[in-house]
Amino acid sequence: MHDMTDRLEPLLKKMAALGIDMFLVSDLHVIRWMTGFSGSNARVLLGGGKAFFFTDFRYAEQVKQEVRNMEPVIIQGSFVETFLEGGYLSGQKVAIQAEQVTVQEARQLEKKLAGAAIDPVEGFFDEFRMIKTAEEIAAMKHAAAVSQQVLEEILPMISPDVTEADIAAEISYRHKRLGAEKDAFDPIVASAGCSALPHARPRTERLSPGSLIVIDMGCICQGYASDQTRTVALGKIPPEARRIYEITKDAQQLGLDSARPGMTGRELDGLVRDYIGSHGYADCFGHGLGHGVGIEVHEKPRVGKSSEDTLSLHSVFTIEPGIYLPGKYGVRIEDTVVMHESGAEPFQTFTKELIEL
Amino acid sequence: MHDMTDRLEPLLKKMAALGIDMFLVSDLHVIRWMTGFSGSNARVLLGGGKAFFFTDFRYAEQVKQEVRNMEPVIIQGSFVETFLEGGYLSGQKVAIQAEQVTVQEARQLEKKLAGAAIDPVEGFFDEFRMIKTAEEIAAMKHAAAVSQQVLEEILPMISPDVTEADIAAEISYRHKRLGAEKDAFDPIVASAGCSALPHARPRTERLSPGSLIVIDMGCICQGYASDQTRTVALGKIPPEARRIYEITKDAQQLGLDSARPGMTGRELDGLVRDYIGSHGYADCFGHGLGHGVGIEVHEKPRVGKSSEDTLSLHSVFTIEPGIYLPGKYGVRIEDTVVMHESGAEPFQTFTKELIEL
Repeated sequence: MHDMTDRLEPLLKKMAALGIDMFLVSDLHVIRWMTGFSGSNARVLLGGGKAFFFTDFRYAEQVKQEVRNMEPVIIQGSFVETFLEGGYLSGQKVAIQAEQVTVQEARQLEKKLAGAAIDPVEGFFDEFRMIKTAEEIAAMKHAAAVSQQVLEEILPMISPDVTEADIAAEISYRHKRLGAEKDAFDPIVASAGCSALPHARPRTERLSPGSLIVIDMGCICQGYASDQTRTVALGKIPPEARRIYEITKDAQQLGLDSARPGMTGRELDGLVRDYIGSHGYADCFGHGLGHGVGIEVHEKPRVGKSSEDTLSLHSVFTIEPGIYLPGKYGVRIEDTVVMHESGAEPFQTFTKELIEL
Repeated sequence: MHDMTDRLEPLLKKMAALGIDMFLVSDLHVIRWMTGFSGSNARVLLGGGKAFFFTDFRYAEQVKQEVRNMEPVIIQGSFVETFLEGGYLSGQKVAIQAEQVTVQEARQLEKKLAGAAIDPVEGFFDEFRMIKTAEEIAAMKHAAAVSQQVLEEILPMISPDVTEADIAAEISYRHKRLGAEKDAFDPIVASAGCSALPHARPRTERLSPGSLIVIDMGCICQGYASDQTRTVALGKIPPEARRIYEITKDAQQLGLDSARPGMTGRELDGLVRDYIGSHGYADCFGHGLGHGVGIEVHEKPRVGKSSEDTLSLHSVFTIEPGIYLPGKYGVRIEDTVVMHESGAEPFQTFTKELIEL
């Protein structure tokens, strides 16, 4: 992530268009996206054509290395005290992130900024964050390659002698050993009946033979997330399990083949959902088709039944249909894709043919 | 955590005393504390002497196993739609957690609950969560024992041939292999100049000989966190490093010996801070002495310069002084303690004598 000056111009332009004098940014994901800062405590003030970056003494060195596009200020006391004492707040109205700031924080801010009004603004940064730069896409491809390598490494370990939690621990460990900052989310390793739970937590129970195993994992590299799911078979599985595997695989491929820039999330979700419905499993696909991925593993655009978000050129999102038969077995297959003029390019190249271990 | 009915009575009593008809609880940590529920999506409504538990279809099975003290409801549509359609909201005023609900959520709620007023309440649950039950203390001792065993396992791996990130990956892996749900926070493994950064992130650089290494780690077991720090020496370290080690060790012991129920966090912090100051390092201890630990690794009581929180009987908190010499080296030594009538009992038994590897 080299020069991020480009990221600020459209933000300042949008502020001017909306009549926002000052924007106090407090979401660390947005701050990382704007500046590259990877620490755990910071605020940004945008206004008057300028951008100021505030953090505490712990990050005095780090901020010099990471933040190139803003003037850094090391706070004395609280953020708000520093804003006031340093004369950084010039506007009558200070915009805040409505989806990020708690009611308590907003109240305290309002009290301390006597004279200035607080203006909660929703989703201000989403339209910009959704469109990925070449560097962001490169970081996400790298994260995807790391998770894919981990998947290759752990498949030979799958046997009735290990537990779901064992495999999950291996995934986290190998992500880090391959240079990831961390998991993008707690890995899901779900066998037997738990494969039918879309968000199962790994259990300390051994993997069941004759079962489908859903493995959903992702990591963070250079600040950007990967997200992928494959479902494999351990031992001989029933014909119905094989059938829902094939339908899910074809549904996922349909999603990959159908995605076009300018579609809404609802439209793409609907195409895949109808396909699954046409095989009689409409009620067994209880979640959205996908979600945007970037600095956060769940961000805009939403790709679900009621999403009017546009799947724009250079947006990045998952395509992850699933079929879940409660108490029996479940399948989910997921790639993360980037939208080109010609359609969706998946970051994952790992086979989707059923692997039988 | 067996019967949690006891947890609800004092809450309902406090609501009555404050004139709160209904409380909509949305913080998953509070919900786990109240009910034992470990899933990722839930709300609780307290009111009219009753408690209702709401979650989505994914947790229909889990809620039966985990939640025994409330009537469970599987939502159709959104939480608020279910509240309204099921007639669960009877009050004129609905209290919400001011420190948890975002401005956006509060606005949406207000719009949907036309007729009912939203009443943001701060810190309602803190006084109850701070006082740990015997079962909670047992869970935390177990988590502490797991982290301590991991520390014992990784010390022999410390050498100039491994990186900070390698050791951090081993810690996370071994936590899980020993049955922890997950890390309580990303482990800190900080050598050389980074040991002087209280919140350093593990680097992919080899450990420096002649350096202090700060290892700060914790895990979650049965929903409860552990938190411990030890600082070790790799190779021959300078006399000044040894000196700040001994002062920090004695300061930490002073904290352990001085803690009494009824003290404020500020008082205990002051005793230890003065001791460090008397050795000329007042400016080198830039954070608070400690923090409460429980379901969250940072919760009440705060134990710092300006904390008027009481260190009550059966409260659990850390005692973790540090001395940091920027660009050179740092030391931090931390135990988590439970407060008895007679004083603080540390959960960690691992030596605090300087280990030289």
